Amino acid sequence: MTDQNMPTALNLPMVDPLPRETQKYFDICVEKLGFVPNVLRAYAFDIDKLNAFTTTYNDLMLGDSGLSKLEREMIAVVVSAINKCFYCLVAHGAAVRQLSGDPQLGEMLVMNYRVAPLDPRQRALLDFAAKMTTSSAEIEEPDRQHLRDVGLTDRDIWDLANVTGFFNMSNRVASATAMAPNDEYHTQAR
Amino acid sequence: MTDQNMPTALNLPMVDPLPRETQKYFDICVEKLGFVPNVLRAYAFDIDKLNAFTTTYNDLMLGDSGLSKLEREMIAVVVSAINKCFYCLVAHGAAVRQLSGDPQLGEMLVMNYRVAPLDPRQRALLDFAAKMTTSSAEIEEPDRQHLRDVGLTDRDIWDLANVTGFFNMSNRVASATAMAPNDEYHTQAR
Amino acid sequence: MTDQNMPTALNLPMVDPLPRETQKYFDICVEKLGFVPNVLRAYAFDIDKLNAFTTTYNDLMLGDSGLSKLEREMIAVVVSAINKCFYCLVAHGAAVRQLSGDPQLGEMLVMNYRVAPLDPRQRALLDFAAKMTTSSAEIEEPDRQHLRDVGLTDRDIWDLANVTGFFNMSNRVASATAMAPNDEYHTQAR
Amino acid sequence: MTDQNMPTALNLPMVDPLPRETQKYFDICVEKLGFVPNVLRAYAFDIDKLNAFTTTYNDLMLGDSGLSKLEREMIAVVVSAINKCFYCLVAHGAAVRQLSGDPQLGEMLVMNYRVAPLDPRQRALLDFAAKMTTSSAEIEEPDRQHLRDVGLTDRDIWDLANVTGFFNMSNRVASATAMAPNDEYHTQAR
Amino acid sequence: MTDQNMPTALNLPMVDPLPRETQKYFDICVEKLGFVPNVLRAYAFDIDKLNAFTTTYNDLMLGDSGLSKLEREMIAVVVSAINKCFYCLVAHGAAVRQLSGDPQLGEMLVMNYRVAPLDPRQRALLDFAAKMTTSSAEIEEPDRQHLRDVGLTDRDIWDLANVTGFFNMSNRVASATAMAPNDEYHTQAR
Amino acid sequence: MTDQNMPTALNLPMVDPLPRETQKYFDICVEKLGFVPNVLRAYAFDIDKLNAFTTTYNDLMLGDSGLSKLEREMIAVVVSAINKCFYCLVAHGAAVRQLSGDPQLGEMLVMNYRVAPLDPRQRALLDFAAKMTTSSAEIEEPDRQHLRDVGLTDRDIWDLANVTGFFNMSNRVASATAMAPNDEYHTQAR
Repeated sequence: MTDQNMPTALNLPMVDPLPRETQKYFDICVEKLGFVPNVLRAYAFDIDKLNAFTTTYNDLMLGDSGLSKLEREMIAVVVSAINKCFYCLVAHGAAVRQLSGDPQLGEMLVMNYRVAPLDPRQRALLDFAAKMTTSSAEIEEPDRQHLRDVGLTDRDIWDLANVTGFFNMSNRVASATAMAPNDEYHTQAR
Repeated sequence: MTDQNMPTALNLPMVDPLPRETQKYFDICVEKLGFVPNVLRAYAFDIDKLNAFTTTYNDLMLGDSGLSKLEREMIAVVVSAINKCFYCLVAHGAAVRQLSGDPQLGEMLVMNYRVAPLDPRQRALLDFAAKMTTSSAEIEEPDRQHLRDVGLTDRDIWDLANVTGFFNMSNRVASATAMAPNDEYHTQAR
Repeated sequence: MTDQNMPTALNLPMVDPLPRETQKYFDICVEKLGFVPNVLRAYAFDIDKLNAFTTTYNDLMLGDSGLSKLEREMIAVVVSAINKCFYCLVAHGAAVRQLSGDPQLGEMLVMNYRVAPLDPRQRALLDFAAKMTTSSAEIEEPDRQHLRDVGLTDRDIWDLANVTGFFNMSNRVASATAMAPNDEYHTQAR
Repeated sequence: MTDQNMPTALNLPMVDPLPRETQKYFDICVEKLGFVPNVLRAYAFDIDKLNAFTTTYNDLMLGDSGLSKLEREMIAVVVSAINKCFYCLVAHGAAVRQLSGDPQLGEMLVMNYRVAPLDPRQRALLDFAAKMTTSSAEIEEPDRQHLRDVGLTDRDIWDLANVTGFFNMSNRVASATAMAPNDEYHTQAR
Repeated sequence: MTDQNMPTALNLPMVDPLPRETQKYFDICVEKLGFVPNVLRAYAFDIDKLNAFTTTYNDLMLGDSGLSKLEREMIAVVVSAINKCFYCLVAHGAAVRQLSGDPQLGEMLVMNYRVAPLDPRQRALLDFAAKMTTSSAEIEEPDRQHLRDVGLTDRDIWDLANVTGFFNMSNRVASATAMAPNDEYHTQAR
Repeated sequence: MTDQNMPTALNLPMVDPLPRETQKYFDICVEKLGFVPNVLRAYAFDIDKLNAFTTTYNDLMLGDSGLSKLEREMIAVVVSAINKCFYCLVAHGAAVRQLSGDPQLGEMLVMNYRVAPLDPRQRALLDFAAKMTTSSAEIEEPDRQHLRDVGLTDRDIWDLANVTGFFNMSNRVASATAMAPNDEYHTQAR
């Protein structure tokens, strides 16, 4: 479906050569992950767009937050499951398996998060993310209050809303452009 | 519903005082628009998050693209109408009225874009944005090819996908946090 | 899309000349509103149908009822928003702005009534109208009881049901025939 | 569920005694049908409302039209099936059985009109009525043109739209008030 | 639509002659019901498939269970109404009329089970069957507990789940193959 | 959620001791698969029900058919993905990985079958299964004809309909009873 040299169905070649800073970032990816995630290669036809994406992504998923990194990855998978985004389910399903050390948890979140054994805080996070994904216009104060009741601060709620929002963006971009996940994800942490 | 001092239902006060660069940016907003959009005030509890947001927003909506600024605002309104996001409908509905000089076009896109008199390219853009919003997992090559058939380049398709994705993010963040649009939008360009 | 001489996409010219009573009614419209609403011009190809429509409309929207005229217009807008009826949103959105003296309330009901600051009675009215519009077959006694609990009489419930029913009819007729609202509505009471 | 003396779940007794004209109309019902349809008894708490209803109903369902009476009843059943309105399915299902002399046709339209052996004109009528019922905002010129292609005039399209609209109103009123159909319908024309 | 010699739209003639055991079973059908149900004729192109079907069916619908035969038929109708399966609505609607001696109950379950006067146990059975049909992935422990609260044993829940599952299978097979119900059902027990 | 000794949330212990034939069948499972699938343990509280299930299952999934075993497993996964059945996605996802020797194909069918590189016959099979699962009442002759056009016989269509129907049954039974898949599936054929 997609040209093997392209990470998406669009013909948008990477800047060549990459700027030194970008090349360095990609080298770190190879070192740490074994590959450059295709989403980064997809944005690399325009370095400003790539930088805007990575800055937002790294702040949301790796930055300081009351939500743990695993919780943020769990949210990513649940949102992506509702949107049926192949790229994000593969990439973030692998992340959940890795961060949790529980491959079945990754599968459950991909397939139907309601079957997963979750504590009330996790369940509340994922229910809110699901409602934001399917019917955000119906969110009202009691939905936010329920999050506070299981211990979230207003800052945590902001982070939850923004991580959920982010994957509702990237799921759609990935599906709209037929973005293909790197093969390496499939076998990680099984 | 929301505290009058807060642009959302979350208690996340702005950094005080704002860094010089941020203050300058807000001053420009006041000068140009007459006010600081509440979405910027909402992100200003954390300047890194604010900067990531404005960098992405400005690149997508104001940067170089084969899509005109009006087309990008039209996409914003159609996506926001499907998601029923009050903040974005108010703010970007005003932008469509202003950029098009056609207040009724703004209303049509808010209410039902199918009644608007659109040329085939505009209609294709908005149909793709609508499909990405409601059922992105069903987008396949013929959907992209149809865009090429009405004259879009692959870069234009990328921009369309990313503008659509962006508002699927910000609609959800705005609804999840009960973000209130500034009063000034309502009467603009009627 | 529609012939400029026709208020809809159907070629159904008005009776010419109009009967004296009809002409008088239209003259009153011009006097009071500044124009003859296109919906009346649309029905005027058959005076019996026009009269049946106006009799029903005037009884429901202007007649004696425990629901205020503003409440009835609010219901009209919420139903029309769910059905995405351009004609009715434009015409009755203007009426809400006018009767309430609150332009933002009109916008909120068009865009997402859940963000509007409503008292419990108003919210109950609009929730019932919304449920009747999307899933009337699921209405059961507790739905009616909830209306009684916020102070509605059985007669009020009848009126609510019939106003909601009426716009579920006229929304569909307007959309099916591409009925165009008069330009004058757009700028009213902004 | 409903008081046996009331045709709905609302406590709205009929005007007593009925005005002479109304009593005469009800007597004709008993003579012709064997009973007074409960929908008429329901509206009879207010004679103006009753008259507005019967005038509209009789014009639409019994008046002059390019659509046959059977076609109008078929539309009524298909709309009512989508809205799952017990009252209208019982009453108008009986009418289809009676007018068509084909009890199975009545059952098919109640259960799934797509299994009925219909000619292209009938199928087009029912498909349009179904689309108006589930997604009227998506009706565009090609939908109307398809009706013209199977032989409908613009006046026929108007009638189709108004019959469909009418049952989208009365289905919702009946369901919202728990209107009960008269027992006599059930065994008619089996 | 379907060849008159075939019970479905597929050209799959019955084994000819039928094995002695099958012929005997069909003879009993004729004796008891007056005809061989078309679903059996449909499967009779392969006797092993026919036997697997009848064994499962007879165990579920006629075998020992805490659910009465009428309750099982009521479930069949409610599931079939959601799936709009003409074959099963006709056949099992007749069964409900017959077993209950209440023709209107059969009609109510076909048209909208929420209008039927049901006791709490019946309502719980049908609500669970409806949820399993429309959104089985959302069933969780409280749904099962509610069934226990109205008196079901875990074995009863198993039977409820399997009857509901069975009609979700056979509804789809019948619709996919345009299976036609025998004419005889239509007039039974009216 | 489920008792560790029980394969579902229902307290329905297996017959003890198992009849000789059943024990033999379970022993073969252990020998071939390494374990007894929990679905068999779930049905084993009643040997007649177990036998009816296995007879139907083995005929459909392992018996003679124009559909290959892999194709039948692909259908199982696509149906189970729509119904979000954790048990069946785990068990039949493993089967697709194993039979195809292509772990990514298994993942694609679980996540979004539209991204999988399928030939026209496979795509037609899966599209038909998906339509049967979400909207079987809308299947008409052109849907069947499309299957014939890609080479299916009427017998193949029967098998497709029955495999699809079967998983619409077992998905719902598994979800309704919280059936848990055996751990061994998760790591198979990755």
